[in-house]
Amino acid sequence: MRVSLVADSSGSRFTPLVVLELASDTNQDAIAWLLSRIRDQQQDGGAELLVEQLGPGVDAQEKENPNVFLVGATWQRLLSGAEDVGLFKEFNDGSMRGFTCANKHDFKDYQGDGDSFLSMAECQYIIKHLLDTLRAKQETHVPGHSEVKLYPGKSIVRRLQSKGILVQVFPLHEKEELKRLSFSWYGKVKLSLQPLDDIRHYYGEGQALYFCFLEYFTFALVPMALIGVPYYLFDWEDYDKYVIFAAFNLVWCTVILELWKRCSASLAYRWGTLSRKKAFEEPRPGFHGVLGFNPVTGREEPLYPHAKRLLRIYLVSLPFVLLCLYLSLYVMMIYFQMEGWALSVHDQEPSFWTGVLLFIPSIIYAVVIEVMNLIYRYAAEFLTEWENHRLESSYQNHLVLKVLVFNFFNCFASLFYIAFVMQDMVLLRQSLATLLITSQILNQFMEAFLPYWLQRRRNKKMMRKVQKRRTLEDKELPLAEQVRLEADMSTYLGTFDDYLELFLLFGYVSLFSCVYPLAAVLVVLNNITEVYSDAFKMCRVFKRPFSDPAANIGVWQLAFEAMSVIAVVTNCSLIGMSPQVKAYFPDSESQLILWTVAIEHVLLAFKFILSFLIPDVPKPIQISLARLEFESLEALKKKCVSEPVMLCGLLVLQRSLRGG
Amino acid sequence: MRVSLVADSSGSRFTPLVVLELASDTNQDAIAWLLSRIRDQQQDGGAELLVEQLGPGVDAQEKENPNVFLVGATWQRLLSGAEDVGLFKEFNDGSMRGFTCANKHDFKDYQGDGDSFLSMAECQYIIKHLLDTLRAKQETHVPGHSEVKLYPGKSIVRRLQSKGILVQVFPLHEKEELKRLSFSWYGKVKLSLQPLDDIRHYYGEGQALYFCFLEYFTFALVPMALIGVPYYLFDWEDYDKYVIFAAFNLVWCTVILELWKRCSASLAYRWGTLSRKKAFEEPRPGFHGVLGFNPVTGREEPLYPHAKRLLRIYLVSLPFVLLCLYLSLYVMMIYFQMEGWALSVHDQEPSFWTGVLLFIPSIIYAVVIEVMNLIYRYAAEFLTEWENHRLESSYQNHLVLKVLVFNFFNCFASLFYIAFVMQDMVLLRQSLATLLITSQILNQFMEAFLPYWLQRRRNKKMMRKVQKRRTLEDKELPLAEQVRLEADMSTYLGTFDDYLELFLLFGYVSLFSCVYPLAAVLVVLNNITEVYSDAFKMCRVFKRPFSDPAANIGVWQLAFEAMSVIAVVTNCSLIGMSPQVKAYFPDSESQLILWTVAIEHVLLAFKFILSFLIPDVPKPIQISLARLEFESLEALKKKCVSEPVMLCGLLVLQRSLRGG
Repeated sequence: MRVSLVADSSGSRFTPLVVLELASDTNQDAIAWLLSRIRDQQQDGGAELLVEQLGPGVDAQEKENPNVFLVGATWQRLLSGAEDVGLFKEFNDGSMRGFTCANKHDFKDYQGDGDSFLSMAECQYIIKHLLDTLRAKQETHVPGHSEVKLYPGKSIVRRLQSKGILVQVFPLHEKEELKRLSFSWYGKVKLSLQPLDDIRHYYGEGQALYFCFLEYFTFALVPMALIGVPYYLFDWEDYDKYVIFAAFNLVWCTVILELWKRCSASLAYRWGTLSRKKAFEEPRPGFHGVLGFNPVTGREEPLYPHAKRLLRIYLVSLPFVLLCLYLSLYVMMIYFQMEGWALSVHDQEPSFWTGVLLFIPSIIYAVVIEVMNLIYRYAAEFLTEWENHRLESSYQNHLVLKVLVFNFFNCFASLFYIAFVMQDMVLLRQSLATLLITSQILNQFMEAFLPYWLQRRRNKKMMRKVQKRRTLEDKELPLAEQVRLEADMSTYLGTFDDYLELFLLFGYVSLFSCVYPLAAVLVVLNNITEVYSDAFKMCRVFKRPFSDPAANIGVWQLAFEAMSVIAVVTNCSLIGMSPQVKAYFPDSESQLILWTVAIEHVLLAFKFILSFLIPDVPKPIQISLARLEFESLEALKKKCVSEPVMLCGLLVLQRSLRGG
Repeated sequence: MRVSLVADSSGSRFTPLVVLELASDTNQDAIAWLLSRIRDQQQDGGAELLVEQLGPGVDAQEKENPNVFLVGATWQRLLSGAEDVGLFKEFNDGSMRGFTCANKHDFKDYQGDGDSFLSMAECQYIIKHLLDTLRAKQETHVPGHSEVKLYPGKSIVRRLQSKGILVQVFPLHEKEELKRLSFSWYGKVKLSLQPLDDIRHYYGEGQALYFCFLEYFTFALVPMALIGVPYYLFDWEDYDKYVIFAAFNLVWCTVILELWKRCSASLAYRWGTLSRKKAFEEPRPGFHGVLGFNPVTGREEPLYPHAKRLLRIYLVSLPFVLLCLYLSLYVMMIYFQMEGWALSVHDQEPSFWTGVLLFIPSIIYAVVIEVMNLIYRYAAEFLTEWENHRLESSYQNHLVLKVLVFNFFNCFASLFYIAFVMQDMVLLRQSLATLLITSQILNQFMEAFLPYWLQRRRNKKMMRKVQKRRTLEDKELPLAEQVRLEADMSTYLGTFDDYLELFLLFGYVSLFSCVYPLAAVLVVLNNITEVYSDAFKMCRVFKRPFSDPAANIGVWQLAFEAMSVIAVVTNCSLIGMSPQVKAYFPDSESQLILWTVAIEHVLLAFKFILSFLIPDVPKPIQISLARLEFESLEALKKKCVSEPVMLCGLLVLQRSLRGG
């Protein structure tokens, strides 16, 4: 499993797991202090980790940052760290339990103090946690950097990150395992499923859940795609058939989202993240404020008044978002003018080229939408950063909300306008198809191939440099070069953008399904290539991310459910507007609308009842969880009742103490 | 605090807290065995409680049950029991913490081993818990009753209850405190609030939360009532004003329900039930099945297949409920025929008596509705019992669902019919008023005055009997008579019916508020008398109930919220149907309907967003809870890290052991 070893200052060799890069102008005192704090024993408040400076690269004459450090740990430290972070591992009896050093021998894969019990991703996560929870003692500031204040009991690493001294912390890739994973994942064109357990082993639960969701979503769309194909092949233009398709679509959306919860619970149970307790959350690196006393911990630390944050949210962020929505509407209106102009040109002198011209406005609009989404994304990140949220989770929630609302509006406003104001179903279908296809192509290009191309150029440059120095036989880069190469790779920013893309695709499929049944087919095709391009970018383009012990897809479950509720409303309205349905109510339009609304309400009520009736966690896992809870209650009861037993235990300990 | 003491068989005197009544034909072996199991030491698997047979009453010659037992406990036992049940008490620093015997001196009201730390209700709850968790050891059946099988590790008391050997278990009233409580509660006509803390002290958190909700609900309706009065006084018949009223109503309903959550969380925090863990739930007394192994505990016990229960629910209960709903519709149709007949009589020869006749069908219908609700209630209880749910909570959920759906349908179907099919607003208002007033009068009569009258007759009879024997100077009944008198009182069946009544009243106020603004006034008036009659029935009519450590009003919060969602739909429709609103859309009815539906959707979305935005727990309590969690995490961390400290502790203990 391990490839390269590094010698510690004390001479002992260790496997480097995590890289710390400090700014190149960091004071040497600060470096010495930080390293000693990382190496210190736990009882002295240190992290008790192994750390060593990375040697110079082959082209040391060039301007390169010397302050790159490799961090590792002994097996004992990793095991006690696993207990600290509350890692769940498989127990002898097949259930998942919180790991404790005391009964480590009762865990299934534990063999001596050896390898293969903790995966490298888990080791890296543990080291990250230990670094993050390395706390300031009595130091008032970082030695040599008097401007960087420290507060007793607060995380040192987070502080250094906020102040720009710590440039980045990232886990190292594992060449051999990565090669094996990438081969089984996307190396061959195959019909089998993704190697989810291997992905989880290498990237952690958060990543694996995303890829599982992507796969699940693709398979869930297959029935819809299969039903959609004949509509395209046989030109089924009558609405009767679309009504059937939409009805199936609505029920299907609800069912797949409910079943996903069960599927995700099963996976999270198998991976041990379902019942894992959340650790106490530290403030995020960028958080700043006036010194005060934290009402929860009672410690002195920077505080930021909640009222001030609310003012920033409601007086700046909210108006800004509304302005952006207005802008988006404005752009939409320009698009409709272009569309009208193209149509008038085509009507005057219809030719092949004017026929092509008809599609141009939609394509331009699709590109503009993507560009606006991108710019808005940066603005939203800046604003949410500026709102100065104390916790990462609250920052994420506010960011997701901002981005979600705008992207939804930006992508679907024109479709809503065409559907319900212009009521032009032909244009709706054409617009939907153009938007969907253009955004798919752009996304694939932007998110995988462009970064890959940039990365490949960098790789080649590095290879050439290395080969200039010495002739490599095994074509393997030496550790120092490998680390520097990975340090230069782009940082993977989490699953946010990937989920957002799926969310918008889900919108294209579900919102207006009854006018364009082929959408599901396109999304299925897109998802299949998406699996490959996402896998590729994870393996080849980005730095390895730290694993994230997620138990579910979090706020995205809610977002997808909200979309499926909106889909009920839009589909019912589209059906109500169809000429075939109108034909049933020749005399009274109000009767038609009332019936449509009534059916919509019944469907919504049905959705809610269904989501109550289907349990979120499958029965066998409910039983396992209840059994664990029962056992811990029983153990607690025994502990409470049997004071005599405790005394017995004490006497035994007494004896062993004397014996020792 | 204590009034009467009873001598134990060992001669020590104790305060009787709980009464156990066994069937009069119980075998003496069984009684002796049960008493010894209750008295046994904890390490022998007993409950370690004090128990004594009740002496014969003054008229022992009469046929009275001799198998009545009084149960009490020593203070030590009550304190260790308080730890077992996970009671939360106020700590020295003002926060609420789980009580432990080890640091009992750090709790605020703890003074030596004396009174006033645990309330009598808490003591009784602890004794009930200890009795309930008294488990069978190796006994295969109850001695002397070979038909009553026992399973190792299962509750003895529940088994005896299922088999009818244990007739009832109830806590004793406390004459002095009850007198004081009832005086401050309903003894004087006053403008002050209810003594909620005293109610909680005497009856426990579940009861106190109900009375708090009743009070909150009443105050919350006052603004609506105040706005409603001028509509009645000035005969504001135009719909413009009703629209304003309905809009206010909708927002108000959402806000009060959200605020109630916060209010309830504050109370539950103050009373220590908010963060209290639920104990592992035992099967309910009536549960039966074939012997098998429980997948959770691994113990042998009766099991009942889930599939069989689902069959009973979907093939018997569901059709039965649907049949009842149909029956209710049928009765409704008869009512409309009566109504039509009364109207035709009045139209032919209008006189004072035919004017009165107009109200007769509504009154009869209201009475019939109440009677049907009552009968259905029994049927629902029988069916839910027959579905054989394993846990009390699942039994309660299924019962509540059945009763709620039927009562909602039964009470409001006619109003929906009048409003949306007949579209007769005058009849709707008249019907609503009659139903509301009749059901209020009937309820007050049925739930308080009738039981009180029956109870008074019994009391007087007992008094006369006692006075026949000896002349009482203090007019106090001796203990034996008091216990037998309480044993004969009706059993309070929980807050179910009380909440159901409030739920229906809430429906009358919110569903059709815009046609009858006076409803809020009537409900406020009703609630004021309801406080008195409920308080009266709790103090004078019913056996004292065991306290129930509830943290919220549970499923009723959901029920009230569902009602407020339905209210949005009905009120929007009523407003859309009003002539004033129709006048804005003279040409197109469909435009009107579309606007109504759009506004309805916006309101619903607004409701959901509002319920997300308002946090369920007030900020200060969130902080207290976070602080407790932080402290326990810190303590845990210290425990994990500081093995040396533990060794120190051991050495200290060693020394103290040697010293002892």
